[in-house]
Amino acid sequence: VERWMGASGTLDVRQTLQIQFADQKQEFNKRPTKIGRRSLSRSISQSSTDSYGSAASYTDSSDDETSPRDKQQKNSKGNGDFCIKNIKQADFGRREIEIAEQEMPALMALRKRAQGEKPLAGAKVVGCTHITAQTAVLMETLSALGAQCRWAACNIYSTQNEVAAALAEGGFSVFAWKGESEDDFWWCIDRCVNLEGWQPNMILDDGGDLTHWIYKKYPNMFKKIKGIVEESVTGVHRLYQLSKAGKLCVPAMNVNDSVTKQKFDNLYCCRESILDGLKRTTDVMFGGKQVVVCGYGEVGKGCCAALKAMGSIVYVTEIDPICALQACMDGFRLVKLSEVIRQVDIVITCTGNKNVVVREYLDRMKNGCIVCNMGHSNTEIDVASLRTPELTWERVRSQVDHVIWPDGKRIVLLAEGRLLNLSCSTVPTFVLSITATTQALALIELYNAPEGRYKQDVYLLPKKMDEYVASLHLPTFDAHLTELSDEQAKYLGLNKNGPFKPNYYR
Amino acid sequence: VERWMGASGTLDVRQTLQIQFADQKQEFNKRPTKIGRRSLSRSISQSSTDSYGSAASYTDSSDDETSPRDKQQKNSKGNGDFCIKNIKQADFGRREIEIAEQEMPALMALRKRAQGEKPLAGAKVVGCTHITAQTAVLMETLSALGAQCRWAACNIYSTQNEVAAALAEGGFSVFAWKGESEDDFWWCIDRCVNLEGWQPNMILDDGGDLTHWIYKKYPNMFKKIKGIVEESVTGVHRLYQLSKAGKLCVPAMNVNDSVTKQKFDNLYCCRESILDGLKRTTDVMFGGKQVVVCGYGEVGKGCCAALKAMGSIVYVTEIDPICALQACMDGFRLVKLSEVIRQVDIVITCTGNKNVVVREYLDRMKNGCIVCNMGHSNTEIDVASLRTPELTWERVRSQVDHVIWPDGKRIVLLAEGRLLNLSCSTVPTFVLSITATTQALALIELYNAPEGRYKQDVYLLPKKMDEYVASLHLPTFDAHLTELSDEQAKYLGLNKNGPFKPNYYR
Amino acid sequence: VERWMGASGTLDVRQTLQIQFADQKQEFNKRPTKIGRRSLSRSISQSSTDSYGSAASYTDSSDDETSPRDKQQKNSKGNGDFCIKNIKQADFGRREIEIAEQEMPALMALRKRAQGEKPLAGAKVVGCTHITAQTAVLMETLSALGAQCRWAACNIYSTQNEVAAALAEGGFSVFAWKGESEDDFWWCIDRCVNLEGWQPNMILDDGGDLTHWIYKKYPNMFKKIKGIVEESVTGVHRLYQLSKAGKLCVPAMNVNDSVTKQKFDNLYCCRESILDGLKRTTDVMFGGKQVVVCGYGEVGKGCCAALKAMGSIVYVTEIDPICALQACMDGFRLVKLSEVIRQVDIVITCTGNKNVVVREYLDRMKNGCIVCNMGHSNTEIDVASLRTPELTWERVRSQVDHVIWPDGKRIVLLAEGRLLNLSCSTVPTFVLSITATTQALALIELYNAPEGRYKQDVYLLPKKMDEYVASLHLPTFDAHLTELSDEQAKYLGLNKNGPFKPNYYR
Amino acid sequence: VERWMGASGTLDVRQTLQIQFADQKQEFNKRPTKIGRRSLSRSISQSSTDSYGSAASYTDSSDDETSPRDKQQKNSKGNGDFCIKNIKQADFGRREIEIAEQEMPALMALRKRAQGEKPLAGAKVVGCTHITAQTAVLMETLSALGAQCRWAACNIYSTQNEVAAALAEGGFSVFAWKGESEDDFWWCIDRCVNLEGWQPNMILDDGGDLTHWIYKKYPNMFKKIKGIVEESVTGVHRLYQLSKAGKLCVPAMNVNDSVTKQKFDNLYCCRESILDGLKRTTDVMFGGKQVVVCGYGEVGKGCCAALKAMGSIVYVTEIDPICALQACMDGFRLVKLSEVIRQVDIVITCTGNKNVVVREYLDRMKNGCIVCNMGHSNTEIDVASLRTPELTWERVRSQVDHVIWPDGKRIVLLAEGRLLNLSCSTVPTFVLSITATTQALALIELYNAPEGRYKQDVYLLPKKMDEYVASLHLPTFDAHLTELSDEQAKYLGLNKNGPFKPNYYR
Repeated sequence: VERWMGASGTLDVRQTLQIQFADQKQEFNKRPTKIGRRSLSRSISQSSTDSYGSAASYTDSSDDETSPRDKQQKNSKGNGDFCIKNIKQADFGRREIEIAEQEMPALMALRKRAQGEKPLAGAKVVGCTHITAQTAVLMETLSALGAQCRWAACNIYSTQNEVAAALAEGGFSVFAWKGESEDDFWWCIDRCVNLEGWQPNMILDDGGDLTHWIYKKYPNMFKKIKGIVEESVTGVHRLYQLSKAGKLCVPAMNVNDSVTKQKFDNLYCCRESILDGLKRTTDVMFGGKQVVVCGYGEVGKGCCAALKAMGSIVYVTEIDPICALQACMDGFRLVKLSEVIRQVDIVITCTGNKNVVVREYLDRMKNGCIVCNMGHSNTEIDVASLRTPELTWERVRSQVDHVIWPDGKRIVLLAEGRLLNLSCSTVPTFVLSITATTQALALIELYNAPEGRYKQDVYLLPKKMDEYVASLHLPTFDAHLTELSDEQAKYLGLNKNGPFKPNYYR
Repeated sequence: VERWMGASGTLDVRQTLQIQFADQKQEFNKRPTKIGRRSLSRSISQSSTDSYGSAASYTDSSDDETSPRDKQQKNSKGNGDFCIKNIKQADFGRREIEIAEQEMPALMALRKRAQGEKPLAGAKVVGCTHITAQTAVLMETLSALGAQCRWAACNIYSTQNEVAAALAEGGFSVFAWKGESEDDFWWCIDRCVNLEGWQPNMILDDGGDLTHWIYKKYPNMFKKIKGIVEESVTGVHRLYQLSKAGKLCVPAMNVNDSVTKQKFDNLYCCRESILDGLKRTTDVMFGGKQVVVCGYGEVGKGCCAALKAMGSIVYVTEIDPICALQACMDGFRLVKLSEVIRQVDIVITCTGNKNVVVREYLDRMKNGCIVCNMGHSNTEIDVASLRTPELTWERVRSQVDHVIWPDGKRIVLLAEGRLLNLSCSTVPTFVLSITATTQALALIELYNAPEGRYKQDVYLLPKKMDEYVASLHLPTFDAHLTELSDEQAKYLGLNKNGPFKPNYYR
Repeated sequence: VERWMGASGTLDVRQTLQIQFADQKQEFNKRPTKIGRRSLSRSISQSSTDSYGSAASYTDSSDDETSPRDKQQKNSKGNGDFCIKNIKQADFGRREIEIAEQEMPALMALRKRAQGEKPLAGAKVVGCTHITAQTAVLMETLSALGAQCRWAACNIYSTQNEVAAALAEGGFSVFAWKGESEDDFWWCIDRCVNLEGWQPNMILDDGGDLTHWIYKKYPNMFKKIKGIVEESVTGVHRLYQLSKAGKLCVPAMNVNDSVTKQKFDNLYCCRESILDGLKRTTDVMFGGKQVVVCGYGEVGKGCCAALKAMGSIVYVTEIDPICALQACMDGFRLVKLSEVIRQVDIVITCTGNKNVVVREYLDRMKNGCIVCNMGHSNTEIDVASLRTPELTWERVRSQVDHVIWPDGKRIVLLAEGRLLNLSCSTVPTFVLSITATTQALALIELYNAPEGRYKQDVYLLPKKMDEYVASLHLPTFDAHLTELSDEQAKYLGLNKNGPFKPNYYR
Repeated sequence: VERWMGASGTLDVRQTLQIQFADQKQEFNKRPTKIGRRSLSRSISQSSTDSYGSAASYTDSSDDETSPRDKQQKNSKGNGDFCIKNIKQADFGRREIEIAEQEMPALMALRKRAQGEKPLAGAKVVGCTHITAQTAVLMETLSALGAQCRWAACNIYSTQNEVAAALAEGGFSVFAWKGESEDDFWWCIDRCVNLEGWQPNMILDDGGDLTHWIYKKYPNMFKKIKGIVEESVTGVHRLYQLSKAGKLCVPAMNVNDSVTKQKFDNLYCCRESILDGLKRTTDVMFGGKQVVVCGYGEVGKGCCAALKAMGSIVYVTEIDPICALQACMDGFRLVKLSEVIRQVDIVITCTGNKNVVVREYLDRMKNGCIVCNMGHSNTEIDVASLRTPELTWERVRSQVDHVIWPDGKRIVLLAEGRLLNLSCSTVPTFVLSITATTQALALIELYNAPEGRYKQDVYLLPKKMDEYVASLHLPTFDAHLTELSDEQAKYLGLNKNGPFKPNYYR
């Protein structure tokens, strides 16, 4: 793959840091799952506008109650190897895809490069991800690189029906619609995999369900599979468990933990989405507000920086002394939650931990205090503890509940304690572009790796490719990299084309 | 009024800076009009949620097409001296008012103080403003201070019908509904003023239409009127013109130009609403974006600070060398628009001027460039120049148009060039609280001023009262003022209770 | 002067805001006096280096103990109408002046413009200011503009001897040296004024001593004097007192209160000098430190912004609710000093008030707390209260004292409570350039003003000239101003060449 | 050691990340060496003040020209096993040490803990570091922990003579003075090691000279040596080379690369020292200045953040696309040096590379451009290329040269291209405290590690101990860590006492 990247040097496989599996969850401060994000990106956009246009309305207006499984549809070329809501929405989906293309420059650059050479020629990729305009750009890029693709949704709500229609019209075998049942979900996955005369040799997964299904139903398929690319925390965790148990039978690439993706998904994205999520739900003024942020990992760092810049007074809680010291040096008072809980206007959790904000703290908050979760699933705030008879819940807006104490005190709970930025804000296409490009390169690397480079284990994306993903996104900013001279490269002991940093660089 | 404010000193009338009328518009960098703001605050809130609750749906669902003027309604006490959409919405309006009360601490503090003394006893206030939950809190405060109120809407779209219902139920003579015709508009104003056996002695106006109506129809009324309180730039401009022409026959208080209001409406509010408005409409990522902000007055300063903090690279254009030098010292490159127009991702106007972004510049922008106006009416961007046959307009979301050039280039135009923060974001209640409190104090001052303190001219709110407004908002932040010792006050030559700064302090 | 400025419009004298004299000190938050600044700028530079070069050493090494008054010196052209330390230092002074010229672009631009026209032709300026390289650039500019100059020092310590020598060598009648006695001081002033056959027609003063001397000794001189330009707070105060008493017999220009100068001297300069002053004296690390800043005027705003940016946690105290609300919105907790005095690491006063930090607070500070004054004279911190027997003073560095309590607690007192930025940091030449240019323009304006434009009163620099000063400094930043189109100027009611803002704009 | 740290859990040795040696220099963006830093910290402090006090003057005034090697001195207890400048300076040195103790809370906490237990009982530590007040606090802590110490200086200029005196008076065998010759240098080291009846079992080195000496002269000593603790980049590099060559015969601990030290030495420290270094040398105003920072590693990030906060316009150059993308997202334009070299006011190198600013660029800089190096040795700026006949060098202040082109253009070169922050600013004691504590813990760990935990290789400090160092510094900020509940620790799979992050966490 490195030759194809345009780099003259060879990739030293020893530089591929192989993360040892560890019992402890190592990255507990980061946003662990993307389940529902893209779909919500779309749905929020719709709900935040009153006349989004026809594409959206097609999606919403379900004039047709027939299950897609019971319908027989064909695209304009007569191909019927797909199962989606309504092929007639294809035009509207195409426009969405075209808009997304504009903000995914790296994938478009890969397509251009692929005009000469097809690094995925012969690849048969089975995929299971959110099906959105951004995914469509990825799929069409993989196709341009030479791959055949069959695709299912990794989430029963997140499919953009019009995008699925555009993909089907374009010849992709897509099996997905918004509002699948549990049974539909597995049926769709099975339809991707189980096809007479076709067998996948690459897996692109988001959450591990596809991988799980093949392990369970078609274990022999792994004989021909060259590798798995997995994006989500959950899926990666499952892979490490398989590896630890000695049951991983192909190499897997953990794209979740690549530096570029991490910084974008956590630090840079949350720096913006914390403000967006709070504004869209509560219209709160940030200036002068007292805020406590629980956890000073990448997500917490992003939230704190944004709120400080907007004039909030921010307190931080931490368990790790190193992050705690960073918070101090960055100008935040490090406190225990109990010290400030009575005075703060906003409580934000970013810990990856559970039961960080428990009922005892909720009882002590002041009237009007806003509580939300930027960290992880929905256990950081002990929402269950608020489901007691003496408290009244009042839904005041979508994603906003007032929980009312007997004395009239109201707590403003956002997204019922689920992830604020997934529920109440959107993820910019540019961030998704980083992830999609990383996935594409991981597929290329695993598909083209010489025998023996990767064993039956979980790997991080080689540093050099992580750097390549970054470099493909620089033109967006009209950013100009400096190149090492021969003399400088020699002095530094570096290849002129990278990698420039050790794998553990953050 | 100063005694009532709890200050021991007397207010030296010489300290009331009397702004000489000037031909030139002096404050051309600030956001000039609030027309539509409050209503939009509400309506956006509704549109940004999908299940706001029943109050909103009442407003929207117009099951009843009868004009309010043709309906005979009475409140539960049998009073029918009002004209609104539907008195049955009163309960829902009451909840909205109660929520607003929580963020308007200063008015609530005035009410508490009014338990002992009624500084507006005998006042008959006729008002013409947006009719929203925040206005309702103001009106009910005026009532608690002793005033009788009759009220009309200053904008045909901005009335929250359920709030009007709650006010009518509470005994206020309100004449307003959402979607008035031009004829309805003046009819409502007339109904406020023209009542057998009742004559106003105070005017609270927002835009000058009420004042204009009385001048035109009932000039004799001014004999009993003690003063006018005007909030808007437009209304204040009209008053200065009247004054200049020697036709102003009562004192008028310009609350638009008080320091507190200015800083909040412009610097602090725009610092937040520029981010909010851009995110809600475009989901754009701010990090790394190149942005040009036209104008470095208070609004421009707010926009620049926010975008810089979010990682954008910001360029500034200015005509005034002093503001230009401030931009330099604050770390922004000062350019002419033509120097950067080809490279920027976002163009924001904050000048108060017209034709700042003309077709020539729009032609040179790059594909995907976002263009919006934070400044003033809808002439800063020459939108009219885009209405030519070769350009295609595509409405992609509410408030978002793609304007498409023949070569496929798209410009993203927000709110059709109207004010972004009024159209696409909300104004926090806390900001409106500053304004409403200033209005209440201006009424008290004019109503209680001894003979001769104010002549037939336009006045700024006395500094001391501006300081009082600020002090009433400090408890929200748990902020503790320091008091001067006698010795210190003497040393500084200040009264211990203020005013602490000259009137021109900004 | 406006024609000469290159502006086509006429200067409307009504736009010259005439500040009414007020008993109270109006600007109590700003740094009131520049006494000693320039000299210290120089002397610190010397002390902060160990081998500054020969110029400095000439100044310091006083091989010659003879009083300059007893020496007979002539410059290379045989002119002896001056009294300085040592004419032989002229070369070294010339280099200092040349270096300063590089950072005073506005004065150099005035010189260039003066090649065609001499707006000060016939002016006989008597000046009394600090005599430094920057002043020399001003004097040589006035000379290029057509003026004759005679000059004395306004401070007995601040003269740079080598600069005085270069001026004398260049033909200026300078009477000043470092280390004058009180008697020398007045003798020098008298020598400037009292010369057979020469009478000044303009006064440039810094502190009011020169003006005072002429009032007292040569009152008749005022008959020919066209005006006074005064820079310092103290001098301006004296002028307002004269005016109030009806004794001011010529127009005076208060350049201290021009916007440009204010912002530079206070906000922008202090934002940098607070960090510089603290580092040079204590090497303290800012990150994580808790700091309380007393006063949130321009100086306080600058200090707070800088320390927040460096990672300190900053608390603010204020007496004025408006500034207090600004502090809140800018993200600082507003407290009373007593609330945080036990916990803070650094205490900074910026109030312009006296006895802000009294013994009671000093007693409660924690061990190692740093205390300094950025505000005003040396009374903000009650240093006198620390001169008691039970406390031990230990001088640990220049400008740094440890005050030691009986229990061993040490307070780190900087500059014995005098102004930190004057004592322990330097003022960039660029800031002095703003001031010097303002002085030059004020002289031109008063000298050329038509009969009747200015009466016997104290005036602010016309807004237009303030804008002109700013515009002359923009090229330093390669900053490009936008010009109004005719249509825009008409729309705004502005002259295309300014003024662009009302006089009270800050 | 973990038990002694107060943690109940056991330290899993597998968590000690063993960095494989790599040919390339991996951390090329960080400040590589501390040679001279501490000494300069002191000497700058002295030169920046004009009356530092007697301690300093003792150091400087060398009334006694006799070489210490020729003097026979004894401390007050009759002990003469040391060789220093002048034992009589001990009192002054003691005061310096006491002041340093106040800002080294972690070492003082270790001493307190050592009252019960002596983890270094029996340790015989031979050390070679800068000999400053901060080192003295470290040495006295090691002694309190049970160790015997013999010490030499790692730099011929950096010794604070009065501190060495205080240590000798306190019974330490110190061999060091300011201004040693090369021969003195090795003589001192030898005196530490080569003592009848005493043999070291631990080495604390800074630069590797001590280690080198023992390897060369007393290789048999390694039989009894339990380990080496090395702080500097250079020393660590030498150790990796030894290891690679199979010649490392004891375990070595690389304390240079611990997270805490890295963040403090690079990001947080440089964020402050870039401002300090520029101000002390040039008094430049930062506001509005255009600056290019070469390299966006930790040092570059710190420099950029500080200058942006002070109102500079900052451009960045990078070779690594990941760091480049970070620069973009943080709001800096990424350029090639050639694009901006003509327009910038300040050029700062932070690359770790050589010949970054070459003559070609220096030729194109504008008049007055300031050039300095924050990165690495003195090769980042090609200073040698400026030593040509047509260029004139003028020393204008200590550490400041004007290099003058034939056309009169001047470049302001700081510290002759050596490290600005080592030459022209100071390092706060708090930063040195982090390093010293890390050294102490590394000694404890190696000395107490059970057989087999460490092999003959180079190790990073175990994460847990890095966290412990951080935790010991939190009380300085009155910072309160949150503790995991049992349930939470289980959920996260973490030990309640840490380590909380993987070793590669940054």
